[in-house]
Amino acid sequence: MENIDFTTPEDLQHHFIKLDGRNIHVAVCGSGKPIILVHGWPEFWMAWLPLANQLKQKYTVLMPDLYGFGKSDKPEAISEGFGPKFHANDLSDLITFFGFECVVTITHDVGAWVIQDLMLNNPSKVFAGIFFNCPNSSIGTRWLTDGHINKIWYQSLIQLDWSVNLIGYNKETCSIFLEAMTKDICYQKHAFDAVFDSWVENFMSPNALAGSFSWYKSINKMRLASIEENLSPQGIKQPKTKLIEAPCLSYWGKHDPILKSEWRHTLSQHFRDIEIRLANNAGHYVHIETPLSSFKMISTFLEKIKY
Amino acid sequence: MENIDFTTPEDLQHHFIKLDGRNIHVAVCGSGKPIILVHGWPEFWMAWLPLANQLKQKYTVLMPDLYGFGKSDKPEAISEGFGPKFHANDLSDLITFFGFECVVTITHDVGAWVIQDLMLNNPSKVFAGIFFNCPNSSIGTRWLTDGHINKIWYQSLIQLDWSVNLIGYNKETCSIFLEAMTKDICYQKHAFDAVFDSWVENFMSPNALAGSFSWYKSINKMRLASIEENLSPQGIKQPKTKLIEAPCLSYWGKHDPILKSEWRHTLSQHFRDIEIRLANNAGHYVHIETPLSSFKMISTFLEKIKY
Repeated sequence: MENIDFTTPEDLQHHFIKLDGRNIHVAVCGSGKPIILVHGWPEFWMAWLPLANQLKQKYTVLMPDLYGFGKSDKPEAISEGFGPKFHANDLSDLITFFGFECVVTITHDVGAWVIQDLMLNNPSKVFAGIFFNCPNSSIGTRWLTDGHINKIWYQSLIQLDWSVNLIGYNKETCSIFLEAMTKDICYQKHAFDAVFDSWVENFMSPNALAGSFSWYKSINKMRLASIEENLSPQGIKQPKTKLIEAPCLSYWGKHDPILKSEWRHTLSQHFRDIEIRLANNAGHYVHIETPLSSFKMISTFLEKIKY
Repeated sequence: MENIDFTTPEDLQHHFIKLDGRNIHVAVCGSGKPIILVHGWPEFWMAWLPLANQLKQKYTVLMPDLYGFGKSDKPEAISEGFGPKFHANDLSDLITFFGFECVVTITHDVGAWVIQDLMLNNPSKVFAGIFFNCPNSSIGTRWLTDGHINKIWYQSLIQLDWSVNLIGYNKETCSIFLEAMTKDICYQKHAFDAVFDSWVENFMSPNALAGSFSWYKSINKMRLASIEENLSPQGIKQPKTKLIEAPCLSYWGKHDPILKSEWRHTLSQHFRDIEIRLANNAGHYVHIETPLSSFKMISTFLEKIKY
């Protein structure tokens, strides 16, 4: 296993930025050109520490908590309205707030949806995008075939109001659930060991489950449409997608049981210029499981695009 | 709401019958020709009491607990191998044990799968079948379309070993889950009020969650095959199904959010001679929600077939 350094950088600063009356937390460290790291589910800013501890040597690293996550404000119940576009607007505002003209983004899971939206609708803000295992609307029916329907139950369960009462009953029930959603889908089974208690503590803080579950309630229509689009007996339709033009890299964990690495080829339907690489020793959480080889892959890419 | 009489009949007897070293519990009351009532998930013999209190006036009513359920023996962990054929063999053995040549069956949910297997492979044992909301292999892709994927998450979750630790953490967590699986899918929202505590007590008894969850692990392959069969771009195939020949009745709850009543028409692909009726004031648990109109419907059918 690579060294996974969750140490808090000495220069780390916690910013709380008011956007439309909501406090959005951004952890910042390092110096140099800006890179924004946007977390997935169930994650928050801390997920980026192992990678940030590498990147900060050369870049200003910004780790926002999306609204509903981490130290950012949260809705009081599982809510709609906090999908990709909502968070993309927040990120656009953050980029402006910090005075950057444009940034490089590094994302995973939820973050990948958000940055795809930002790159399509506000392309001048993103110089280049790096995507770990990258969900996208062309995965479609693949979410269901080859028994994959048994892997995505949580995306339905956690839209239900009462799921917060079951999963968040106490720290132990929350641990049972989070273990399945973190450790169990790693290839490096000990990747979360150092921080798992912090994960439980974070998601047991007030409204943290409801806030994070709101993501799946918010994308429900989009998710169902992308899955069901190709369920008709007429067969698979050709997607009509505007392509993302900025240079991109995807570094996809080979052993991800949720976002299967064979799906990486769908990315060519969304990105004009994307380099797609396999992370051979990682599962769902490449940035946590293999931060050093991720850093190397990212550095090479950033050198290539001269950032 | 109809009167829902969960009173234990005065003449109720609990039999424990040894089948291949396993104790199978059968609650028996009434007298006359035999009717076997086979429960669904998450149910057990008590689910039939409101209907049994009507039927016992004219029939011998047998309410078995399938292996893994109620007062029957249970596997110690969520297990495969206890699907329709396994339980159908048990029921065939029970019919022989009690000295019946053949019986009428009344079933719901899991029980419907079991009795379809028995009627196909051991047709002489079943004179006629009555099916409440009746799952069958022709439902196929309908399990996924129109957002229905969000309704069936539990069929995946409860195949996972750790689900027993989360749901069965204590009586309160079990209540949260069972409420969603019983009360929430009733049209008569108070139908379970009198017995809900007994439900929680039953499923919190040793290995009761693991035993009942074993159903979904056991039918996993069959379930995925029936769903995925029609996901290919070639379109929907014609099923090749041997038809059940005995006269049958289905009385399907109009408001069932899981087994949708519009699916009742799929039954003609499995039954040669079936009368299909809608229970207008019921959801998933017709036999509990509307036991008096169910009894009336069943009586008329049994008179018609001279049983």
